[in-house]
Amino acid sequence: MPNENSHRMKVLEASLEIPVRFSETDAMGVVWHGNYLKFFEDAREYFGNVYGIEYMDAFNAGYYTPIVKSNINHKASVYYGQKVRVRAILEQQQASKIVFQYEVHIVETGELAAVGSTTQVFLGIENKLLELVKPDFFASWEEKQNWKEL
Amino acid sequence: MPNENSHRMKVLEASLEIPVRFSETDAMGVVWHGNYLKFFEDAREYFGNVYGIEYMDAFNAGYYTPIVKSNINHKASVYYGQKVRVRAILEQQQASKIVFQYEVHIVETGELAAVGSTTQVFLGIENKLLELVKPDFFASWEEKQNWKEL
Amino acid sequence: MPNENSHRMKVLEASLEIPVRFSETDAMGVVWHGNYLKFFEDAREYFGNVYGIEYMDAFNAGYYTPIVKSNINHKASVYYGQKVRVRAILEQQQASKIVFQYEVHIVETGELAAVGSTTQVFLGIENKLLELVKPDFFASWEEKQNWKEL
Amino acid sequence: MPNENSHRMKVLEASLEIPVRFSETDAMGVVWHGNYLKFFEDAREYFGNVYGIEYMDAFNAGYYTPIVKSNINHKASVYYGQKVRVRAILEQQQASKIVFQYEVHIVETGELAAVGSTTQVFLGIENKLLELVKPDFFASWEEKQNWKEL
Repeated sequence: MPNENSHRMKVLEASLEIPVRFSETDAMGVVWHGNYLKFFEDAREYFGNVYGIEYMDAFNAGYYTPIVKSNINHKASVYYGQKVRVRAILEQQQASKIVFQYEVHIVETGELAAVGSTTQVFLGIENKLLELVKPDFFASWEEKQNWKEL
Repeated sequence: MPNENSHRMKVLEASLEIPVRFSETDAMGVVWHGNYLKFFEDAREYFGNVYGIEYMDAFNAGYYTPIVKSNINHKASVYYGQKVRVRAILEQQQASKIVFQYEVHIVETGELAAVGSTTQVFLGIENKLLELVKPDFFASWEEKQNWKEL
Repeated sequence: MPNENSHRMKVLEASLEIPVRFSETDAMGVVWHGNYLKFFEDAREYFGNVYGIEYMDAFNAGYYTPIVKSNINHKASVYYGQKVRVRAILEQQQASKIVFQYEVHIVETGELAAVGSTTQVFLGIENKLLELVKPDFFASWEEKQNWKEL
Repeated sequence: MPNENSHRMKVLEASLEIPVRFSETDAMGVVWHGNYLKFFEDAREYFGNVYGIEYMDAFNAGYYTPIVKSNINHKASVYYGQKVRVRAILEQQQASKIVFQYEVHIVETGELAAVGSTTQVFLGIENKLLELVKPDFFASWEEKQNWKEL
C-alpha cells in the first residue's frame, strides 16, 4: 500500500501587493489581459527574493529558466486605482521543472481577479540544451526549505 | 448512430507576419514570453479585418469581448531580427464564446515557436452582464462564412 | 524693481523606489529606454498619492491631464536586479499646465541613470477642449501646499 | 567666405504605416503616450532595413547604439482602430552620434499626432566605452547614400 504522504503536494508561497499602472490599462478601462503575465513575473521575483532562489542563482549555476507554459483564467476586471495582491505558490516537482500557481485578488474589494500558472525549465546558457535532471543548485535549495503539505 | 459530421470542428483562419520589435526582447536576448499575447491579439485583429468582424462591430452591438482564458506553450525562442507568422484559427462554438487557437512560426527558419489559445465572452457594455446566448450580430456573421471542416 | 523672490521656482517633490522588472529589460541586457516613461508615470502617481492630488481628482472635476511633452536624457544603464529611485519634482506654473522634472538614480550604486521632464495640460472630458485657465480644483490644491523655494 | 552649402542639413528619410494595437491604448481610450517611443523605434528599424544599416551591422562592428536622448511633442490623440504613419528623418552629423527627427500622422485623418527626436551614440560592446570618433562602418555607409539637402 503506497504511503499516502508521498502523494501530497508540497508547496511554498509568497504574496505581493502591486498597484496597477495607468500604462497597464486599455481602452476598456481595465488592466489589459496580457499584463497579468507581468504580475505573475513580479510575484515569482518576489518569491525568489523571500526564499533566496533568484534569477542570478540560476544564471551563476549556468542556467536560464525560460517559461515554457503559461495560462491565465480571468474572473473579474481590475481598474486603474486598484491594487492587486498576487499569491505565487511553488509546487515541488520530481521532474526538472519549476511550476507556480497564482491567485490574483483585488485588494480593495477582496474579489478574485484571476488564477493561472507557469512552468519553467532549466536551459544551459552555454550548450543551449534542456536539462533533464534537476540541477544541483536547485535541488539543494529545495532540501533546505520548510515545505507546507497540502 | 450519431451523424459524424456534427462532431467535426468548423474553422476559419488567417495568418499574419509580424516583425519582432527590439522593445519586445528581454535580457535573455529573446522575445519576452508575455509578448506572445500581443502577437495573438495582432492575429485576432487581422482575422477580424479579413473576415469583417471587428472590435467596433461588437462595440456597436453593445458588447465588449474580453479575454477570459489564455494559454501559451513555448516551443522555440524567437530572436530580434526575426519575423513570426501567427496563424489564428477560429473554432465555431455552440456556446456564447469566441475561441481561437494559434500557431506561431519563425519565418526565417520555419520552426514552430509557440502554440496557444484564447477564449473570449460577450459582456454587455451597459449592463456589465455576461451574455449567455450567442448575440445576433455574431450569429449572423457566422452564418455568412465559408467554414472549413476539419 | 521686480521682487527677486517672484522669480524663484517653487517646487514640491516625492521619491519612489522601483525594482526593475525582467520584462522591462531588452536584448542589450538593460532597461529598454522607453520604459523610463513608465518610471516617470509611477513617480507622478506616487507624488499624487503623497500630496492628495490624483488622477481621480482631475477626472471628477471633469478633466483628463494628458501628457503633451516628454523628454529623457540617459546617463547610465540600469540592469535587471537593480532598483531605481525616481524623484519627481513639480514646478509651480503660472500657466494652465503641470510640469514635472525627474531624476532617476540607481539605488545600489547611487549613479544618476537619467533625467527628464513631462508637461501635462487640462483637457475637458466632455468638450474635449484644452483648458487655458488653470482649473479651480488644481489652483485650490496648489494654495494649500508648502512649496519649497529654490 | 564660407560655402553656404556646408551649413545645409543633409537628410535621408523613410516612412512606415503602423496599425495601433489594442494593448497600446490606455483608459483614456487613446494610445498611451510612452508607446510613441515604440513607434519611433519601429520607424528606425524600417529605415535601417530600407537603407541597409541595421542593428546587426553595428553589432558586428562591435557597437551597441543606445538611445541617450528622446523627446516627444504630442499634438493630437490617436485612437484604437486608426493607423499612424511614422516618418523617420536621419540628419547627417559631424559628431559621432545618430540623430533622427520623427513625424507621426494619423493615416485616416491626415492629422499630425506627434513630433519628436532621438539621439543615439556608439558604445563599444567589449570595452563599454563611448566612441568619440564616428566609426568606420557608419562613415562608409554614410558616404554611399544619396543625401537630400534641405
